[in-house]
Amino acid sequence: MRLRWTLTPATVLACGVLIGWLGSMGRVPESLQAQDKAAEKVQADPLPSWNDGAVKKALVEFVRVTTDETGPKYVPPEQRIATFDHDGTLWVEKPMYTQVLYCLDRIPALVKQKPELKDKQPFKTVLSGDKEGIAQLTSQELEQAVEAALSGMSVEDFQAEVKQWLATAKHARWDRPYTELAYQPMLEVLKFFRANGYKTYIVTGGGQDFVRVFAEQLYGIPPEQVVGTALGTKFGHDKAGKPILTKEPKLVHNDNFAGKPEGIHLMIGRRPHAAFGNSTGDQQMLEYTTAGAGARLGMLLLHNDTKREYAYGPAQGLPDSKVGTFTQALYDEAKKRGWVVVSMKDDWKRLFLFEK
Amino acid sequence: MRLRWTLTPATVLACGVLIGWLGSMGRVPESLQAQDKAAEKVQADPLPSWNDGAVKKALVEFVRVTTDETGPKYVPPEQRIATFDHDGTLWVEKPMYTQVLYCLDRIPALVKQKPELKDKQPFKTVLSGDKEGIAQLTSQELEQAVEAALSGMSVEDFQAEVKQWLATAKHARWDRPYTELAYQPMLEVLKFFRANGYKTYIVTGGGQDFVRVFAEQLYGIPPEQVVGTALGTKFGHDKAGKPILTKEPKLVHNDNFAGKPEGIHLMIGRRPHAAFGNSTGDQQMLEYTTAGAGARLGMLLLHNDTKREYAYGPAQGLPDSKVGTFTQALYDEAKKRGWVVVSMKDDWKRLFLFEK
Repeated sequence: MRLRWTLTPATVLACGVLIGWLGSMGRVPESLQAQDKAAEKVQADPLPSWNDGAVKKALVEFVRVTTDETGPKYVPPEQRIATFDHDGTLWVEKPMYTQVLYCLDRIPALVKQKPELKDKQPFKTVLSGDKEGIAQLTSQELEQAVEAALSGMSVEDFQAEVKQWLATAKHARWDRPYTELAYQPMLEVLKFFRANGYKTYIVTGGGQDFVRVFAEQLYGIPPEQVVGTALGTKFGHDKAGKPILTKEPKLVHNDNFAGKPEGIHLMIGRRPHAAFGNSTGDQQMLEYTTAGAGARLGMLLLHNDTKREYAYGPAQGLPDSKVGTFTQALYDEAKKRGWVVVSMKDDWKRLFLFEK
Repeated sequence: MRLRWTLTPATVLACGVLIGWLGSMGRVPESLQAQDKAAEKVQADPLPSWNDGAVKKALVEFVRVTTDETGPKYVPPEQRIATFDHDGTLWVEKPMYTQVLYCLDRIPALVKQKPELKDKQPFKTVLSGDKEGIAQLTSQELEQAVEAALSGMSVEDFQAEVKQWLATAKHARWDRPYTELAYQPMLEVLKFFRANGYKTYIVTGGGQDFVRVFAEQLYGIPPEQVVGTALGTKFGHDKAGKPILTKEPKLVHNDNFAGKPEGIHLMIGRRPHAAFGNSTGDQQMLEYTTAGAGARLGMLLLHNDTKREYAYGPAQGLPDSKVGTFTQALYDEAKKRGWVVVSMKDDWKRLFLFEK
């Protein structure tokens, strides 16, 4: 390819606008027209898995006002950043975080490689098969133990292993790979925002390296736009003298609660204009996001659909939950600050990617 | 703006290709033709400030082979990452790092605000005006002292202050703002790579928050694509209850030497295909980059132009230097690994942005 245009990041971001404009002038080559027709359907309804109502309207309206160059709430393309929590916001987090299930599955093989681990906690409990004991372990204990045990593994080997696990592991309730349990309505939000010049980021309390393995294929979010809890790596050379990065058991960034806005500053360096979450771990990200000047959107999913998924809070009298806690205090805060609360039961026509 | 296209990041990155292709079919609207003509000039020579020779050829050839879809060295757009060291690679780093000069300028005002600092080091030495003593201070001592003194300042206030300093401070030799001392040939490389679908990143040993203040305007590199040495921030609320991020004197990431590939993994999560530097602090980044499969480019600037800039090594018999050290060992390593060494004296037609 030869150089034809000198593009600045702003124009790259704006190319959706430019292409749309070329199209509206009837100058788009025929071979692109099929795609264009498909796109027009999306234009008619960018969020087909959302029921009509105040929440859907808030999403469409936010995108409209922030991309309307003639309006007072216009946001220049380079400032269009939208951040999304992962577990419980983009895919299922019940009965346990998927990464925790990965850790539980990983432990027998780890102990086989390093037998000295078998009498240490939490390995001992996991190997005992004692379900009650396992249920008492915190996700942090499990994840840190597994990460520590993975210490010395190259980042590429880790990626390959997670990939392999995801290809075979299935969710007990739906008997489907976890990646098929991504929320279709949220996939539409991601596409809708990107089509309007937003850079979409995952900002997760989960492991950054774990989520990066599948975020690009599943969500269209590249590794460099995944911010999460991060352990260190160590640069060195393997036996053949080849430069290598290996995983280290050192916590560099804890991306939960206040760690979310701190992680956003560390990795992105700009305040988002929109933030999506579903639990108390997302409150600070939404506070930081919506405290900025101009148009800002904060949105929280309330898991209140026992039949199609799970119902947990304890907000609004829903059952309490250790995973993805949505307290009444958070609900009240949302109402006070004008954050939009999504009722998954009422606002979503369908839930999962596999139902598409 | 209404939704017209559902763009994936890959297609966003590829839009340079698409627009070029629309153009080649003669369907670009007239109002774009002026820009197109300007772009054609660049197409004729994307690197006008570079003298013809092996180095310029290597740059053009690397971009050609990695964007040729029919060739064996093709790199898909989403994987096109190029990383650039900052001090000495994108702008002048002599006689001292610009950020150190900022720190020196900042200290009197800081001590005025916090008088208890005046008897502490390095503040005492700086205030004494003792040039020899000041010259003995390491840049790390100065930067960390200033960062520590800035502790509690909001990230926005810090940005505003750096911006103000840059608007008035001038380089002693050229009597021009530091931002005018960016290297014009490197600005062309940045544009050339971006026009060919590369995401350009700064990966600097300097302060991430410092460089982010001006990188977008000066280099077209947005804050989220600046990786550097990073201190922590703390999320909290100001007296009015407004969410705020304040600077913390805690080192989160040291982006020098091995810290560069580690920082790349932390912040980008992909191995770059091209890396540019000018000192031993960049060696590990180049090792990591060029150890990847497929086409990779490692490039080092050798400051050997006493007349137009500075000459320092000590590689190739140039004078030794504490700032931006380029050892003979690094030079030998470059030759061994096939990294390209730029002779600033011979390869650059002009040096600075202000000469454009």
